[in-house]
Amino acid sequence: MKIDVLTLFPEMFTGVFNDSILKRAQASGAVELNTVNFREFSENKHKKVDDYPYGGGAGMLLTAQPIFDAVESVCQAGETKPRIILMCPQGERFTQSKAEELSKEEHLIFICGHYEGFDERIREYLVTDELSLGDYVLTGGELAAMVMTDAVVRLLPDVLGKQESHEDDSFSTGLLEFPQYTRPVDFRGMVVPEVLISGNHKRIEQWRHEQSLYRTYQRRPDLLESRSLTEKEKQLIDQFKALKND
Amino acid sequence: MKIDVLTLFPEMFTGVFNDSILKRAQASGAVELNTVNFREFSENKHKKVDDYPYGGGAGMLLTAQPIFDAVESVCQAGETKPRIILMCPQGERFTQSKAEELSKEEHLIFICGHYEGFDERIREYLVTDELSLGDYVLTGGELAAMVMTDAVVRLLPDVLGKQESHEDDSFSTGLLEFPQYTRPVDFRGMVVPEVLISGNHKRIEQWRHEQSLYRTYQRRPDLLESRSLTEKEKQLIDQFKALKND
Repeated sequence: MKIDVLTLFPEMFTGVFNDSILKRAQASGAVELNTVNFREFSENKHKKVDDYPYGGGAGMLLTAQPIFDAVESVCQAGETKPRIILMCPQGERFTQSKAEELSKEEHLIFICGHYEGFDERIREYLVTDELSLGDYVLTGGELAAMVMTDAVVRLLPDVLGKQESHEDDSFSTGLLEFPQYTRPVDFRGMVVPEVLISGNHKRIEQWRHEQSLYRTYQRRPDLLESRSLTEKEKQLIDQFKALKND
Repeated sequence: MKIDVLTLFPEMFTGVFNDSILKRAQASGAVELNTVNFREFSENKHKKVDDYPYGGGAGMLLTAQPIFDAVESVCQAGETKPRIILMCPQGERFTQSKAEELSKEEHLIFICGHYEGFDERIREYLVTDELSLGDYVLTGGELAAMVMTDAVVRLLPDVLGKQESHEDDSFSTGLLEFPQYTRPVDFRGMVVPEVLISGNHKRIEQWRHEQSLYRTYQRRPDLLESRSLTEKEKQLIDQFKALKND
């Protein structure tokens, strides 16, 4: 996979793109990550990339020309159409299923604005997707592009080690993860639940399942609604409800 | 405000903390940003920070001791209780109102895991908040800490310039932003809507309001539900619905 990030702040990416899993994924050839400063494509003699909005109003807008030309420069002749993704608070919410969808593409292009809005023609005629990390305001699209790059690249084949790949189990069962403890048994008076050091695997499994269910009930009841529950799980949830009403 | 980020990968933060608004906010004294490698606090002779889970299972867990001690090291004697925030997919969803809440604190401590889970005692006895960026899986908490730092710091007094502060207007009206255009009027055959170059401010204002409403109706109907609509807005939405059914 190839990912090109169009940004006015390419140096922001250095630390994140050169560490941890993104570093290894590049070294192994699983992904090629590039940053492209679209200011370099500006035809304006002062390399300006923004201008005032038509019709008046505060703030500046990124102009179409440098971004259209920067996108063109990273698209190779004859390649299958890349996904051209605008980082945008009005965009579709980024989710794990979107990460999975994008991980099947050959070429992603992320377009990051900074401070400013975009000329609408970029949205209308150039991009294939508009994505948002969530309902919060960030200074630019750069952090969103880093987050999406990480979420997508770790799904590529052979990028995660066997051990690392277990960490998202909790999402895949549809329940939140149960509490986990490691050594020592007693840390400054805070002790590990007895069941976990009992050696009784059946009891441990049962405790973990109940804890998962309880945590999900407390924190993310919405996840329970979209899950088909066993009779036993329904009984447990009735018990949680009774506890709550006590 | 002071923000301490506890991480095993402090070098990931270099690019983001030394650029753009976070750089300026530090230079002006509005915020002090530190990264702390909690591996340095490990009492293990090999500086190990993780261990196997009690009760069996795949994956490693971050142990309590280095993280408890690293938090203690950044808390000053006599300071008001800091917010100690665990980056965690099971946590409460980060939102703009959470950013606003955190921006009123004096001291934030972000704890970032990487690959691994946490010993439950960290969650139970140390942290004050557990936050998640959204429903997607990331390699570590580092990117989440960067996103939250950016979202919070830009809300601090005098951090944003006057112009920059306008960019989030769209969120504050409860509607998505209307389309905006800048020069040239004709970019490779793609033209700016005539109304915006009409000079008729009343028509421009009306067009923008309708466009905002239409975009919100199309992309984020949930925002309309939580907003009290004027009679005129209700009529427009009925027209949008009629268009859709044509």
